[in-house]
Amino acid sequence: MLLTNARIAGTAGLLDLAITDGRIAAITPAAGRPGRDLGGALLLPGLVDGHVHLDKTLWGLPWRPNSGAATVRERVENERIHRAALPPVSVRGANLLRQMIACGTTALRTHTDIDDAHGLANFHATMELVARFRGQADIQVVAFPQSGIVTRPGVADLLAQALREGADLVGGLDPTSFDGDARAHLDIVFGLAQRFDRGIDIHLHDRDPGGNAQLRDIAARTIAIGMQHRVTVSHAFSLGTTDADDFAATADALAAAGVHILTSSPSAGPVPPVHALRARGVVIHAGSDNVRDLWSPFGNGDMLERALLIALRQGFRSDADIAVALALCSDATALGLPAHRLAVGAAADIVAVDAETQSEAVATRPARKLVMKAGVVLAEEGRYCGSA
Amino acid sequence: MLLTNARIAGTAGLLDLAITDGRIAAITPAAGRPGRDLGGALLLPGLVDGHVHLDKTLWGLPWRPNSGAATVRERVENERIHRAALPPVSVRGANLLRQMIACGTTALRTHTDIDDAHGLANFHATMELVARFRGQADIQVVAFPQSGIVTRPGVADLLAQALREGADLVGGLDPTSFDGDARAHLDIVFGLAQRFDRGIDIHLHDRDPGGNAQLRDIAARTIAIGMQHRVTVSHAFSLGTTDADDFAATADALAAAGVHILTSSPSAGPVPPVHALRARGVVIHAGSDNVRDLWSPFGNGDMLERALLIALRQGFRSDADIAVALALCSDATALGLPAHRLAVGAAADIVAVDAETQSEAVATRPARKLVMKAGVVLAEEGRYCGSA
Repeated sequence: MLLTNARIAGTAGLLDLAITDGRIAAITPAAGRPGRDLGGALLLPGLVDGHVHLDKTLWGLPWRPNSGAATVRERVENERIHRAALPPVSVRGANLLRQMIACGTTALRTHTDIDDAHGLANFHATMELVARFRGQADIQVVAFPQSGIVTRPGVADLLAQALREGADLVGGLDPTSFDGDARAHLDIVFGLAQRFDRGIDIHLHDRDPGGNAQLRDIAARTIAIGMQHRVTVSHAFSLGTTDADDFAATADALAAAGVHILTSSPSAGPVPPVHALRARGVVIHAGSDNVRDLWSPFGNGDMLERALLIALRQGFRSDADIAVALALCSDATALGLPAHRLAVGAAADIVAVDAETQSEAVATRPARKLVMKAGVVLAEEGRYCGSA
Repeated sequence: MLLTNARIAGTAGLLDLAITDGRIAAITPAAGRPGRDLGGALLLPGLVDGHVHLDKTLWGLPWRPNSGAATVRERVENERIHRAALPPVSVRGANLLRQMIACGTTALRTHTDIDDAHGLANFHATMELVARFRGQADIQVVAFPQSGIVTRPGVADLLAQALREGADLVGGLDPTSFDGDARAHLDIVFGLAQRFDRGIDIHLHDRDPGGNAQLRDIAARTIAIGMQHRVTVSHAFSLGTTDADDFAATADALAAAGVHILTSSPSAGPVPPVHALRARGVVIHAGSDNVRDLWSPFGNGDMLERALLIALRQGFRSDADIAVALALCSDATALGLPAHRLAVGAAADIVAVDAETQSEAVATRPARKLVMKAGVVLAEEGRYCGSA
């Protein structure tokens, strides 16, 4: 396939891209050859959603007023109560995947709830989605103990079973504030990761300095079992609250251990500071988190919109800063996947948008003109056209 | 004209709306009559943008990387340098007005820069826009001293001349931190308001407790000249930073004086707390502020998106809370205009959207199916179709 008359940031003029065997085989000046004419559209690398919950979403269902409450614990309880009455994950999760792909996401990590009420049901449904969308999106599955581990007998065994059945990572949740015993919680999480040789991705919502102490504990444990760059902490709000010395010590510990930070960049409350973390060598990347579910009525799975929310939240205005926000939203290497690049030899994960520059794409978030995964067109003019 | 098969939040079933002489003449159950079929779309009252800068925008021009700097003062200087080379306000401002109307805004307040470098040029161009868009949007013009008053000889006279020529309100800017002399600055602003019998709208960016002291000073001055509910303070970030007692005293002073608070709900830094202010009787409403200009590359003039940003920033999730965010974005009475209501007798300022509920409209911000101002259709399917 030949994509013609495309533009790439940093490269002058219109370009043609030859796609062969799912990879970019050549990038040459546009030469009026027959092909799929992109009419001067700007190309972006396939977007990456580093944190989503396919099994929670209500996407594509009738509008449901949010009935959640203020705390993580109350929202967990609310979801345990109402979840059983929802349509199956196979419907809801597929709805969201089609939306995400239509918005240009070609790789993602989803946290699937494993608890004593639903066992492995959500996990199994999610693994079916992975199989159904194979080739359309690279999907990593986190075995996520949404209701806790230490305080929920049997959940540790369920997590082990999920890893045995192919979960890519083991998750965790607020070891201190939710599960009440950080040492026991992290012993189980890190123990499972080591036993099954899988990565880790822990939700950490704590905002107080104790949150940073847990981050340093996680960094130390990561080094101890040699899992550098295979451990992520999602949210890590405490990085946005503490004093400069505590922040610096924590950031340095995260950088030394290769512990990555995932942010959905919520607008209320503290968030990890992007530039300050990157300046100290910490990998920070981005995800949608909740997309219209029992936790939040908002979100749409659009990582260009996520880049805008990050830019607004971080006070980014220059093109250079906005490029950083966008880079957080297309960072496959943070997930341990090959980099998403618009370069010869890279996989043809490509998003085309009608925008002059990357900054304009973030500011306007136009309907995606084309979305391609490994050389296969999956969306046109904002509409999913794949087969799942 | 008859709008048929529409829905209104809180009213069951499909409705027909008869529009006569620019007003809603009747609302009746849908009866299969011939008319303009809205196919079950949800109606919203005409949206209201309480704070925009038509004379600053770059909307509709080629993308311009942001060259601004970190502080208000540096951004003012940056704009003074680059403004002269921009296309005229008649082009840029009209571009933005068409976009705002296409998004459903039917009333707005614009701050037009008056300074010693450009005199009344921006003001005159803005007044021409007001005339050109008459009947398509109710536009209030604030004579805004963007470069200061006390520190800029001649600006006070220019403000007076603008009021003489029809400016609706007199503005102000950070009396202490920018203009350096709060008493002299406010003496001039309140003096002009009293002399010309016009309202006041003051930009106040200060974040420290001194900001609240200025708010209380403004409240006292408002009562002193009997201008209750004709004075607005825009931004008022200090309300989001101070301790509970200081906040309460300040909010009570604002409520007693009928001083309104305008927020654009920026995602970085403190913002006025919506529920806490309303609970103490303070009128708070919303506006876009900068829309793709030399200050910010972001913004799009869409007050449904503004409602979403407010909801995200304030942590609103329930339908009741989201309705508050939307109400801030359609509050005409805060500007001293008749209320925007979907009721018999009200002006037919109506926005139709394909959404089940108001919350879904805020979450998804669909292209506006129909925008009507005083009974005249100005936009269809997201596109402006008026004559300006």
